[in-house]
Amino acid sequence: MTTNLSVNGNRLWDTLMVSAGIGTGPRGGLRRLTLTEPDRVMRDQLKAWAAEGGYPLTIDGLGNMVLRRDGLEPDLPPVVIGSHLDTQWAGGRFDGILGVLAGLEVLRTLDDLGIATRRSIEVVNWTNEEGARFSPPMLCSLAWSGQATPDWVENRRDRDGIRFGDALDGIGYRGPEPVGGRTIDAYFELHIEQGPALDRAGVPVGIVTGGYPSCGMRIAVEGATAHTGPTPMSERHNALVGAAMVAVAVNDIGWAHADTDAKATAARLDLVPNLPGTLSEYAELFIDMRAPKLETLETMKASLRAALPDCAARSLTQISIAEEWGFGVFSFDDGLIGLLRETADRLGVPTMDLRSQAGHDAYHVARVAPACMIFTPCRDGITHNEAEDIALEPTLPGVNLLLHAALARANR
Amino acid sequence: MTTNLSVNGNRLWDTLMVSAGIGTGPRGGLRRLTLTEPDRVMRDQLKAWAAEGGYPLTIDGLGNMVLRRDGLEPDLPPVVIGSHLDTQWAGGRFDGILGVLAGLEVLRTLDDLGIATRRSIEVVNWTNEEGARFSPPMLCSLAWSGQATPDWVENRRDRDGIRFGDALDGIGYRGPEPVGGRTIDAYFELHIEQGPALDRAGVPVGIVTGGYPSCGMRIAVEGATAHTGPTPMSERHNALVGAAMVAVAVNDIGWAHADTDAKATAARLDLVPNLPGTLSEYAELFIDMRAPKLETLETMKASLRAALPDCAARSLTQISIAEEWGFGVFSFDDGLIGLLRETADRLGVPTMDLRSQAGHDAYHVARVAPACMIFTPCRDGITHNEAEDIALEPTLPGVNLLLHAALARANR
Repeated sequence: MTTNLSVNGNRLWDTLMVSAGIGTGPRGGLRRLTLTEPDRVMRDQLKAWAAEGGYPLTIDGLGNMVLRRDGLEPDLPPVVIGSHLDTQWAGGRFDGILGVLAGLEVLRTLDDLGIATRRSIEVVNWTNEEGARFSPPMLCSLAWSGQATPDWVENRRDRDGIRFGDALDGIGYRGPEPVGGRTIDAYFELHIEQGPALDRAGVPVGIVTGGYPSCGMRIAVEGATAHTGPTPMSERHNALVGAAMVAVAVNDIGWAHADTDAKATAARLDLVPNLPGTLSEYAELFIDMRAPKLETLETMKASLRAALPDCAARSLTQISIAEEWGFGVFSFDDGLIGLLRETADRLGVPTMDLRSQAGHDAYHVARVAPACMIFTPCRDGITHNEAEDIALEPTLPGVNLLLHAALARANR
Repeated sequence: MTTNLSVNGNRLWDTLMVSAGIGTGPRGGLRRLTLTEPDRVMRDQLKAWAAEGGYPLTIDGLGNMVLRRDGLEPDLPPVVIGSHLDTQWAGGRFDGILGVLAGLEVLRTLDDLGIATRRSIEVVNWTNEEGARFSPPMLCSLAWSGQATPDWVENRRDRDGIRFGDALDGIGYRGPEPVGGRTIDAYFELHIEQGPALDRAGVPVGIVTGGYPSCGMRIAVEGATAHTGPTPMSERHNALVGAAMVAVAVNDIGWAHADTDAKATAARLDLVPNLPGTLSEYAELFIDMRAPKLETLETMKASLRAALPDCAARSLTQISIAEEWGFGVFSFDDGLIGLLRETADRLGVPTMDLRSQAGHDAYHVARVAPACMIFTPCRDGITHNEAEDIALEPTLPGVNLLLHAALARANR
């Protein structure tokens, strides 16, 4: 097998910089929320690149976009490389984007060198990975993998009450293909690490063995409106105060387990009516907790459950867990992880094993197909921030690992 | 002097119930935010009542509406009775409204009985008393009393970015009269107590001697966006957590002084970007604190100032007081308070002295003219809540006190 085969780094960087110009944020990152106008422009660009490369493009009923480079035996289940082109509200230029455009670069490299593969290779751009507009994140790989119906997805609403289905139609990216239900041979997702481990260790590649056991909760706090002035302290039922107590408790729980690299976050708080002069009658707090070990996460969840009645009693409100979800408790495919290790060895690329602390579409795909992930370094681990940055040089070993591993799998 | 003169309670109640049908809230109270369509309809109703009574109506450049019943010597400074017809988002049917409509009832009663007064009597409806749409509350009596310019008021923006001036034009209630700059003889404001003291004591009238020393603050918390997953606890700068710690500290300070009847409130919290998956980079918390004694308030403010660095250190954010304002440190006019006491004695109406814990337009008017307030009972002290309620019978002694005191002053 060859080892001197490599992607065109400059071309990859150029495509990344074209993307970085679409939906640029106020501080030089990206604000390209899913199914908005910048997302449409970026999708049009991907479509143009597909046409330019001669890669047939298909789009399913949730806007998931698939570019395909046909193999010699096109009826065989394909090898799929994917990630997402949507970003956070204060997003970086590489989170997700690198994975899609590295996949495009793999197709282009194979074309440059006239390499035919036995299986077809596809590149997918998943809709609404970030969850910054429609909740939950990884929404369309969830449906693709059969864990939610397209109908349920279409009826999710953003903060302004806009339906996912209407937003999808609004940018013209509802396609005719069915959502999921396909057999694929393997799924590769390359992603920036979104943590500091690779950058600090000076190692270019992380082989992702699985996720961090994680949970999310929507916590509801019920109070009552009243005047902020005359109402005695003992007759106040201020939902804002109840939610603030829970937010502090969540943060304390994160710190209590920080030595295990666990985290707990109070991420979003919605208040009604949220006006000066009036106590809040309702609050919704979105939290998440993550830990390397499931037993740590379970301890954290138990601590939170124990804290809620205390917060309710001190704030004279009613507090309940309105919704709860979990993810990250799984491992990626042993065969693919083995392939990544062997390929990296052959290429002389140093690697380290990592578990992913962020959610990824690969988590959902792993439910129905062999899947794996490659992490590349991310400066100081900064992400979900416009200052997110990478350098090309330490990124290329990961992209070349993707090229070689996908090629090997496509010729299987 | 007469004592058997009294208002028409049923007519007053009927006007209150007409008002209660304009901008009715989902739970039977009122949601009649200033300069919205329901406010316009209510203003049109007041205009119709003015026309029906033959009371010339003038409107100033900020939408403050004045009905006038001319006196025998119309060039003398008038006696003014006022309050507001706007409500909170979850407002009651009587907060402010009773004061304006009681004033109207005074004019009508004088007409019924053919009583001419030496001075003219005016009834004013102040724009944006509540502050539920434009900050600060009591905005247009602030300008009327020369403490802010009409230009500054016009450029205040609501949460959707709409300018006060544009909203005023939108409902067609910008009038030609100058804002303030007039000499008035006396200002009376009748208002529900918004606290439980009168209701619990079974006393129909509170004579308001002054306000509670009060302060408001806008507290800014600066953090940084980052991923809620991989970012280590020690590298998080979550503005939501910093603001939550301040909200809890404010509430604790309120409880620490609750035995003095002091209060501290975290009332409104705005977060950026407030999305799941991302730490917040910015938070603004609106708080207020009130105490019967200025020295207690100063102690509370000192406690809060001392707590902020601790909240900042624990949340790894920057916390500062972005804006601070105070009100309530004043006393109403001794002459008018004396008049209220004497009149109540003459009418045999039991009274108790109270300090107001809520802000009122009378506070601002008191800066430039003799002013006083009459409180009437409010069931269980519930207010800024759609369940706010009063009964007519215990309200009438206060309205009759207003009639007699205003009449006495108008004949002075």
